[in-house]
Amino acid sequence: IERRDDQVIIDLFAEEHTADIAEIIDELSNDDATYLFRLLDSEKTAEALLDIDEDDRARILSKLSEKEIAEHIDELDTDDAADLIGSLSNERQNIVLSNIEDGDHAKDIAELLQYDEDTAGGLMAKELVKVNENWTVPNCVRKMRSQAQEVTRVHSIYVVDNKNVLKGRLSLKDLLVAPASATISEISIPKVDFVNVNDKAEEVARIMQKYDLEAIPVVDSENHLLGRITIDDIVDVIKEEAEKDYQMAAGLTDDVEADDSIIDLTKARLPWLVLGLFGGTAAASIMGGFDEALKNYPELFFFTPLIAAMAGNVGVQSSAIIVQGLAKDNLRGSLLNRMFKEISLALVNGVFLALIVFSLGLLLKYPMKVCSTISISLIIVIIIASLVGTFVPLILHKKGIDPAVATGPFITTCNDIFGIFIFFTIAKLILGF
Amino acid sequence: IERRDDQVIIDLFAEEHTADIAEIIDELSNDDATYLFRLLDSEKTAEALLDIDEDDRARILSKLSEKEIAEHIDELDTDDAADLIGSLSNERQNIVLSNIEDGDHAKDIAELLQYDEDTAGGLMAKELVKVNENWTVPNCVRKMRSQAQEVTRVHSIYVVDNKNVLKGRLSLKDLLVAPASATISEISIPKVDFVNVNDKAEEVARIMQKYDLEAIPVVDSENHLLGRITIDDIVDVIKEEAEKDYQMAAGLTDDVEADDSIIDLTKARLPWLVLGLFGGTAAASIMGGFDEALKNYPELFFFTPLIAAMAGNVGVQSSAIIVQGLAKDNLRGSLLNRMFKEISLALVNGVFLALIVFSLGLLLKYPMKVCSTISISLIIVIIIASLVGTFVPLILHKKGIDPAVATGPFITTCNDIFGIFIFFTIAKLILGF
Repeated sequence: IERRDDQVIIDLFAEEHTADIAEIIDELSNDDATYLFRLLDSEKTAEALLDIDEDDRARILSKLSEKEIAEHIDELDTDDAADLIGSLSNERQNIVLSNIEDGDHAKDIAELLQYDEDTAGGLMAKELVKVNENWTVPNCVRKMRSQAQEVTRVHSIYVVDNKNVLKGRLSLKDLLVAPASATISEISIPKVDFVNVNDKAEEVARIMQKYDLEAIPVVDSENHLLGRITIDDIVDVIKEEAEKDYQMAAGLTDDVEADDSIIDLTKARLPWLVLGLFGGTAAASIMGGFDEALKNYPELFFFTPLIAAMAGNVGVQSSAIIVQGLAKDNLRGSLLNRMFKEISLALVNGVFLALIVFSLGLLLKYPMKVCSTISISLIIVIIIASLVGTFVPLILHKKGIDPAVATGPFITTCNDIFGIFIFFTIAKLILGF
Repeated sequence: IERRDDQVIIDLFAEEHTADIAEIIDELSNDDATYLFRLLDSEKTAEALLDIDEDDRARILSKLSEKEIAEHIDELDTDDAADLIGSLSNERQNIVLSNIEDGDHAKDIAELLQYDEDTAGGLMAKELVKVNENWTVPNCVRKMRSQAQEVTRVHSIYVVDNKNVLKGRLSLKDLLVAPASATISEISIPKVDFVNVNDKAEEVARIMQKYDLEAIPVVDSENHLLGRITIDDIVDVIKEEAEKDYQMAAGLTDDVEADDSIIDLTKARLPWLVLGLFGGTAAASIMGGFDEALKNYPELFFFTPLIAAMAGNVGVQSSAIIVQGLAKDNLRGSLLNRMFKEISLALVNGVFLALIVFSLGLLLKYPMKVCSTISISLIIVIIIASLVGTFVPLILHKKGIDPAVATGPFITTCNDIFGIFIFFTIAKLILGF
């Protein structure tokens, strides 16, 4: 089909949804994709350009001229346009901006480009419906109609004063039933949630979820209305946040995908592995320090991987619960209570697991003394691992570090080393080698 | 403040947002919370009831009479009402339903209660604005106005025929500019995305995200319009999905929170730990089988925790990348290509790590022969662990099992055992003990 048969292709894509076009483009070679972008109407391809994979997008953008990119940008809302232009070099950004036909649109996009991606400013769009509190109802309806043309979805109508300071919001229903003589300030609702342009994206996501908002206005420090953020952008923030935690738990340092290059994948995977390697070597030298036990109690060495694995697993479980509690902001009670609870929990789990390992040890015909040593150590290791797992994320969080780091191989490695050291120390005390 | 000073409390809460009320209630004892629910206007508390913690909600509901619950339900949209009632016993459900004043509301809720929570039917609300394709424009505007009263947010207007079959959607703008003589079928847009009432919640979430929809109509197998799903419900689905993956990666089997009881926490944590215990014991007996090496090459035993940990980490990293690729549905290319790439990647990482461990081993003054053995085994273990990590989630996915299981302790435990077995087998081949 991709044999450059223009008309057939145009007809074929005429009815397709942009998200589906994006999927097709993901499957194509870069040349074919670029050809398709030039051929199809920019109204369709502009949206598709947002939906395709980041790497593919970069490659296609590098093949299109600044003028062609500007044509695509013309079709996009300011927030999407800024995201798209933001991925270009500074030089190309300026050329593209100067090629945009609508001057106001270009100015809005240039403004959005100044804000950090991870803030409310980086998420917001300039498109919104706002009315002046001094307008009369008929005047307002007339002006709103022209504003609404540019806004894909209206969501909310914001009320500002003459200085563009956010004063409240307006319900469409109230507007429709209001007498023609009323001014907007008489029928507007003064209570309105808003965020500051410098607020963190996660904070915006939290507020919008908590109050179940579909859009929220963004203001500067003097309460001037700058833009608005809609729920679809927040869905992306939530997903990225969740993915970041998951990747950290799995020991990946970068946002990578299965189809990234081997270099990118190595960069994401190697750092934690190197950490694990040093941890493992440290564990090895600790065990080397207890080599007197080798002759009489070789079983201890057979069971170290088990002790290390249990310490790691228990630590990660404890951390994950705390990390989620911190994210949902629903941790209650004092630190002392938490410690007491975590110790009780570890004791319950530990005793149960120790009984199993004791029975298994006897089944494998290990000496009774060794089995008791392993069981007792296991209980103590589990208690300590769960305390480390609980308090490390709490401390990280207090220091302003993402607590999800704790669920990654970092805690596991630490607990491995701790666990092995404790295991052999207790064994030495009990067995006296 | 909670000394039952009714009027003060009512005034205090008058201006509070329901989500904030919910937060306050979470902090209160059950008696105080129940008292508050009885005191405050059900318009406020109904929404708050949805926002509070599940366990607290169950306890408060058990203290309120069926009639009191019905009053709360009256204030809620059908989807929220069904969720709330759904947590009660069947017997109480029926009493509450019969206590709801508005008969249509009760009937709608009873219908929603039939659907499985994880399907489109379980997510949808009955509140929507629909118009008949045969209506004229003025008739439509009149009828819409009365429907819109009951719907918090309009989002979309759906067009149906006389048999309630979904025919398309209507843009408010088109309706406003249409001549009075036009019928709805002339100005409606026939292209409309929809989902079946039995579609899985995750599938609905995927479609709504892909096409960037804020609401989607739900139909039965004969295309009768049954309800609609809005983006805020989808946000919850996405979050739960992400949390489930994260918890599985951390080795938790249930959705638990830090403040749950020790029994609930144990239930969520113990299963994977027991698995790990059996895995560790298996590893111990494998090592026991190679005990001839103890005399001459004790260093091998010092390094087993390292080998096991590296096998585990590499496996989880590979799995996590595949799990995310499956979730985003962006895995391309053949299995053979993927295998080739994974082996190359493991080789790059493995050789690099092997060089480090070789140098560290020499630093610790281990015999050259032992260091080479450890390094070579490490490379092979990493290759095998990454293949296991890549293909196990793919196989699970094909069998209809959630591939995220693979990132949990299951893969780690398997890789531990594999890794240790491979390590000693290679060591025996090289060192010949």
